Parts: sequence; C-alpha cells; structure tokens
Amino acid sequence: MKSAFVYDGCGPKKPRNSDLWRSKKLDKSLNTSTKSYSVLVRRNMTRFINPTPGGHVALRATAEHQTTSSTFETGQDTITRIDEVRKEPNVVESQEELLQVKELYVPLEKKEETILEAEELVKLTLSELDLQWLHVLADGWAAPLEGFMKEDEYLQSLHFSTLRLKDGTIVNQSIPIVLPISNSDKERIGTERKVALCHPDFPGKPVAVLRNIEIFHHHKEERCARTFGITDPRHPYTSVIYESGDWLVGGKLEVLERIKYGDGLDSYRYSPRQLKEEFRRREADAVFVFQLRNPIHNGHALLMNSCREKLLQKGFKKPLLLVHQIGGKVKDDDVPLDIRIAQNEAILEEGILDPHNTIIGIFPSPMIYAGPKEVQWHAKARMNAGCKFYIVGRDPAGMKHPGTNRDMYDPWHGKKVLMMAPGLEKLEILPFQVAAYNLKSGGMEFFDSSRPEDFLFISGTKMRKFASTGEEPPAGFMGKKAWEILASYYQNKREDTPPQSR
Amino acid sequence: MKSAFVYDGCGPKKPRNSDLWRSKKLDKSLNTSTKSYSVLVRRNMTRFINPTPGGHVALRATAEHQTTSSTFETGQDTITRIDEVRKEPNVVESQEELLQVKELYVPLEKKEETILEAEELVKLTLSELDLQWLHVLADGWAAPLEGFMKEDEYLQSLHFSTLRLKDGTIVNQSIPIVLPISNSDKERIGTERKVALCHPDFPGKPVAVLRNIEIFHHHKEERCARTFGITDPRHPYTSVIYESGDWLVGGKLEVLERIKYGDGLDSYRYSPRQLKEEFRRREADAVFVFQLRNPIHNGHALLMNSCREKLLQKGFKKPLLLVHQIGGKVKDDDVPLDIRIAQNEAILEEGILDPHNTIIGIFPSPMIYAGPKEVQWHAKARMNAGCKFYIVGRDPAGMKHPGTNRDMYDPWHGKKVLMMAPGLEKLEILPFQVAAYNLKSGGMEFFDSSRPEDFLFISGTKMRKFASTGEEPPAGFMGKKAWEILASYYQNKREDTPPQSR
Repeated sequence: MKSAFVYDGCGPKKPRNSDLWRSKKLDKSLNTSTKSYSVLVRRNMTRFINPTPGGHVALRATAEHQTTSSTFETGQDTITRIDEVRKEPNVVESQEELLQVKELYVPLEKKEETILEAEELVKLTLSELDLQWLHVLADGWAAPLEGFMKEDEYLQSLHFSTLRLKDGTIVNQSIPIVLPISNSDKERIGTERKVALCHPDFPGKPVAVLRNIEIFHHHKEERCARTFGITDPRHPYTSVIYESGDWLVGGKLEVLERIKYGDGLDSYRYSPRQLKEEFRRREADAVFVFQLRNPIHNGHALLMNSCREKLLQKGFKKPLLLVHQIGGKVKDDDVPLDIRIAQNEAILEEGILDPHNTIIGIFPSPMIYAGPKEVQWHAKARMNAGCKFYIVGRDPAGMKHPGTNRDMYDPWHGKKVLMMAPGLEKLEILPFQVAAYNLKSGGMEFFDSSRPEDFLFISGTKMRKFASTGEEPPAGFMGKKAWEILASYYQNKREDTPPQSR
Repeated sequence: MKSAFVYDGCGPKKPRNSDLWRSKKLDKSLNTSTKSYSVLVRRNMTRFINPTPGGHVALRATAEHQTTSSTFETGQDTITRIDEVRKEPNVVESQEELLQVKELYVPLEKKEETILEAEELVKLTLSELDLQWLHVLADGWAAPLEGFMKEDEYLQSLHFSTLRLKDGTIVNQSIPIVLPISNSDKERIGTERKVALCHPDFPGKPVAVLRNIEIFHHHKEERCARTFGITDPRHPYTSVIYESGDWLVGGKLEVLERIKYGDGLDSYRYSPRQLKEEFRRREADAVFVFQLRNPIHNGHALLMNSCREKLLQKGFKKPLLLVHQIGGKVKDDDVPLDIRIAQNEAILEEGILDPHNTIIGIFPSPMIYAGPKEVQWHAKARMNAGCKFYIVGRDPAGMKHPGTNRDMYDPWHGKKVLMMAPGLEKLEILPFQVAAYNLKSGGMEFFDSSRPEDFLFISGTKMRKFASTGEEPPAGFMGKKAWEILASYYQNKREDTPPQSR
C-alpha cells in the first residue's frame, strides 16, 4: 500500500459541512495575521533581500538600498491595489464573458467526419508532455492561442512574453507552447498541410488534427536561455527541450474529445468554462486563486485566509478561493498529484481552509520551473478561467540552480515581473510576504524582520526529513490529518527506495 | 604607418560635388536592382532558409514549409508598408518634435555648482565601455531613459524589451543599459543617495552625477541568457558582463559636458538633436538609416540606392540617407572605426552613394552582438534621432556562436522580431533581401534563388583574405578607392602581426 489514506476520486463539487471551519486554531491564525499586517506597515519600507544558507529569504531594514521591491511586499499595498480597481462588488462573470472561453474541441456534429479524416493523415505520436500541453490548449487556458505556436507567435512569446492580436490587443503569453518533432517526422509530413496527433499510450489513435501547419527550426539553446535564464541541461525542463526534436510544428488545433487521464482525479480537472460556470453558480463576487505544486501548510493557509478576510473587508460578499494544483509533469522530488490533492482535501476537512468557499482543482499544465516567465503563464491561464485575483509570493515557479544549488531566480523577481507584465492588467495581483514558524507563539505567521530570532523556516528538505523519519513537525505547522497523508507518502517512498540511493 | 590614406577628421557637413555620382556603374546597379525586384515578386512566396557551409543563406522554393518569414523578404512588401503609412510626403520633424529630444546634460547655468558638488561625492571610475553607454544616455539615444537603469526598468527591458511610462505608453528598450559596480564600490557608497561618475582616462575627474541611486544584484548569467540567448562566456559581450561587478547601480544622470574622444572623429558623432536639426536644414522629407559596423561594399550600396529609388517613386522629394557607423567597442576582428569612416567617405567620393543626399555619422553605442535584441536597440535609437525608415537585412547584429561557429541566431529572426517589436510602430522597417556577387553580370545584385549558380557570396573572411594578400576582389565588389583603404589596413595589420598568430 502506497499511502495511508483512502481516496475516492470524487471532486469537491459540493462544499462540505465540516464543523471544524472557523475553529479556534483558525481564528488564532487570522488574529495573528492581522497583527502581522500592522507590523508590516510600520516597518521601514526599504528592505533588502538576503538569501540565508537554507535558501530562504530574510528581510532586513536597510537604509542604503532603495529597490522598488519594497513597495510590493506589504498587505497594505495589496489593499491599495484592490481599492483602485473596484469600489463596488459585482458578479464576476457576465454570460457574455462566460461564452468567450474559446475551447479547441471539434463541434459534436463534426466529430465523426474529423475522426475519419484524421485516420487518413500523417500521424505524429505525442509524448506525455505534449498531451498535457494539448490539453491546456484545448481547454482554452492559453486562449486566444488556437493551437501549437507558429513561428511568429513563438518569437513574440520568446522575446516579448506577449502576443499581439489582429485588432492590436496585447495578450500575455510568456512561455512558448510548441510541439517539437524529429527530422524523420518532418520528412514523413513532407508537403502535407495537416497532421493527426496521436495519444502517447495508444499509438495510432488520433486525439486531434493540426491544420494549416508550419514547420520551423527548434533553436533549443536560445529557447532555454530566453525562457529559463539558464542553458544548463540539468534543469528538469531544459533537459526535456534538449532531448526533443529539432523542429517545431505549429498550426490550428481541433481536438476530438476531452482529455481524460483515468487516474481518479479527472473530476478535479475543471476546464476554464466549467470553472466560470461554477463561479457563477456559487454567485462568487471575487475569485482568488492560489497556484501550487506543494502540500498546503498553515503558512499557506494563513495567507489564503488573510486574503479572504481582506476581500471581505473591502466589501466583497462572496469571495471564493480556488486552490489550484499543477496537474502536469513535475520534477521527481515534488509530491505526486494524488497525494497533494488528498492532502489538500484533508486541509478542507480539518477546516483550516473554509470548505464552503473553496474549490480544489487541477490545472493540467506541466510545471516548467521558469520562475518569472512561468508565473505570468500561471496567472494568465487562471485569468482565462475567470479568476480576478492572483496570489503571488516568494520565488514562484522557482527552484535551485542545477549547477550552483542556489536559487535560480532572485526570489522577488517573479512577483515584480508579474506586476509589470503586459497583458495582465485586468488581473489583480495579491502579493504576499513570506510566512515562517513562530517559535514563541507556536504557529505559522508572516515573517517579521524586526525579530528574526523568533522564526523558524521549515524548508521542503526539512519537511521531507520530518516526514520520512516519522518525526512530528512543530505543532501548528500543518493540519494533523494532512500531515499524516504526507508522512505516510514519504515513509512509503523511503521503504521503496534502495538504501544506497537515499 | 598604419594605413595608406590621409584622413583629415572633418565631418561631411557639406555635400560634396562629386562628379562620379550617378556613374554608369551605379546606373547599371540600379537597373539590376529593378530587375531583381520583379524576379523576387514572381518567386514562390514560400521559401526556406538554408545555411550553407560558408554561413550564408540560400533560399529555395519549398512547398512544404510555410513560415511567415516569406512575407518579409521582398522589396514589394517594403513598398506596401510604406504605402500604408504615408501617402503625402511632408517635412520630417516639426519644431516641437525637435525640442522633444531629451538630453541629460546639466544646464549651463548649473554646471559650475554641479562640478563642485561632484567633487564632494563618492567617486566611481567608469570603464571605457561605461563611458560609451553614458554618452548614449546623455545624447538621448535611449530616451526616455534618464540614466542607468534601476531594477524595475532593468526587469522590464530584460523580460519584455519595453518600458511602460507613467502615462501607459510603451516604448521599446530591448537591451538593459546598466552600470555594474564591485562589492567594494558598493561598500564605499554606503548609504549615499548620489555618486560622481569619473572618466576612465582621468581618474578622479567627474563626468557626471548619478542621483537618487538604487543598487541591485547583477544576475549575470540570467542577463546574458535573456539578452543573447546564450550564456557562453566566450562571446565578446557576455565576457564583459561576467567580468564586471556583482551589483548594478541605477539612477538619474546629470552629465557635466559633452563626451569627446579626441580621435579626429568627434565631428561625426552627431547627437540626435544635431541630426534632427540637420535633417530640417536639408529639408529632408524621409530619412532612412543604414546601421553598420562594416565597410560598405557594392551590395550594401545597391540596397541603399534601391531604398532611395523606391522612396522617390513613392513621392518623397528629398529622401536623405544616414550611413550610421557603430562608434563604440566592437569585437577584435571588426574593422576599426577610423578605417570604416575613411572607407565610407571614399564610397561617397566615388559616387557609389549620392554625396548630396547622404550623411555619414557615428552612433556612439558599443556593439553587443545580441542579434534580434540588439537590432531593436539600433532601430529605436535612430527613431529618437528623427529617422523614420530603418533598413534591416540578414542577421543584424549577429555573429558566429563562440562554441559551434555556426550563426548564433536564425539569420532572419532579427528582421522578423524587429517587425513585431512593441514600441517601434512609428518606425517604418525596410526589410531587404541578401545581395551577392553575380558572376555573369560582374556586379553585386540581390540574390536570386532560382539561379544560385550565378552568385558568389563574398564573406568577411574571404574579403579579409583578398585584402591581406593583396589580391583584387572581383570587379564591381567594392569601389576602387574604398577597397584600397581597406586593403591597406589589412596589409598593415598583417605586417604588425607575428607570423605564428596569423
């Protein structure tokens, strides 16, 4: 048995009536949060980012250093931004906006003939990763993209992180979504103008037709450099790029049917249209999204609950939280999707997040670990799903540099770049401070740089060590049931791993 | 003696009355050009870029390949773009526009006090390269930048190739203009809010004051990756970046006086304001610019003359050509500035370019060899000087990859990226086809892919070989006097070089 919990595979479509909601623990956490905000506001506004040996960031007051970063980092600023945008709450999506979600699925009445057509075309077998990107495109997360990028879209994305539409509108598209093919695939395509794309697990079974295709060179080193800011092939996604085909094929996508993975988690994979419908059904007047590829600890929860409180204070009546787990490929040491979802569900059951006003969903995109480039993609995709508020913290989509083992990106660049990114103007960015374990109060709190000695940063490595050795983390770090799920996963993983590779 | 010509250092402020203008050779060249255009238009529009072993690009008709590149490559398309923009010629710059050039020189009445102030500040000694960038900023080539970049400008430039002004306007700024400083410089600055910047050749002599400063990390690898698309430290400018300080200091620049180099070429270094004034004085109704870091051969001349003809055909009465040589640091195997200027002057004297309607000038920027990123900078800077038409060809600002010795960039990406770049909408891009030596007609012509056997590509390497061995290039490759200047330079260089390093 791989883990200690039973997972039924049902999505959280109906809010649970957990009596743990608004427990004492949560109230304490929210009070702490309020206190923390006022402390933040009082602090000197000029601060300086100092990576500690553990890779975490400590902030210290510094008079000589004047970066613009300081203006992004307080809850106060967040609220200012919200104030600027809307004084009066209203329903998030009009019917017209809802209909604007552009999916790339073939209309039902044309499905049969398109399947027949696909059977006659040159067939390209997708990789698992290609299929995830196809899913992303098909659902409309990357709208207005109508398929894998052609060269002019690729160049715009690579150089400007945007696409210019025919009417002059600029939309954000910070990472290229492309389909690499080999030399031999290119030869097989020859002069054809359309191809069938086939499922990785069922070779020869078309999942889509790519029309009006264009084939262009895959300049891999340049793509890596401009996307990731490194060219090192030991990065989990640059390695994928270097190993992929020498050509890219772009074109217009017609997907034959909705992508399913049969892993018991498909019901969490709401499309943007489904999400918009759900937001409407719930009459949410402010949807805020928390993107993650990790289990939720009480620091995350503190933050999400603080955002909710602030939205309520600002006059929104029904703010709704979307806890949105990355569903595509992640790197080997990230927690698997099924464990993350189960852990997140436990957090709701334990009332650490409000189950009545929270949706747990899966975003089908792969992680590419591109920091400031990827955080834009994460935000833009959720904007396409009707979210108006996007939470961003320290080092989004970052990781350690594969060569130096230091942070690959300046941990605050993601937030800064996101806040200046063209094409995301309609999205409200909710920046937040880093949370840490307060040794005195025994809970997760926003880090206060005026008393760093009070705080303990619990890194992923430290958390994994607690979990795999069966040691309990400090009380108040994570919900009990949620922790058990995680600990069980790591203990089973440890048992599965030969001793020499630990 | 380093070269075989005498150079008087005077700028070309008055057009020469060369009786060679409109020589038979030039007329022939122009006729060829017209013929070539019609051939180009008849060609299949779908083409495919094939690097040849010599590094040049051959174009062949190909039905299976449909890139958007094809639409950029004919003279016909150029003209379509011009048509779209203006039907009626008019004077290029109004007095108001002229006054808009924002220079960063301290006003005369404040000069004395600023010099006194600078003497009391922490002093940073600029490198030669820093001084060139300071010159660029001071003249207003990089306007609306008001000094070396602060972090928010740096991040916008690095990620989006643009800057967003307070009024929401997007301007192009594709390469960061930054001032690196060392750890010890940072420590010396301490909590100061302004510093004096001193001349590299006269330590302690302030040339500028940098105010309201901000110091931030110099993420070198990331800067290289996002700017150059490579991180290889053997590139001529990445090496400069890796060797520079670990911090960047940004701020508002006040430059004490105009930058002079005392190399006999200062009179060519027109500022944007001077150029605008000159364009007005000459009543030019269309200024087109040719950026280069090379000697001019007859292929370049063919192109410039073709552009002129087309502008005349479109109704402009007084098109003016700015031949604009890079004045800053170039890589070691590029021809030195003084030789290039002398060679360019000879081209005018020989009438290969019309001396009455051509200005030779020096653009004080260093070359950074950043291909598609740098071509935007080259275009944007000239737009700031009142140029409305910018010529772009194959592989602008490109070079060989220091690791593979292949073209570092796709040779047509520069043109494509330039034509889609945000913030350059007011500039008309004049794309052109590559020229080659026609073995049958004995002159430079636009390359015709339907008869590649007729053409000879004369690479820089081949040209250097001709020059240094005293061999004559094919007749019609370059003006006679211009060639002599170049040959003389290479022969002297050869004599100066120890045999083992040739």
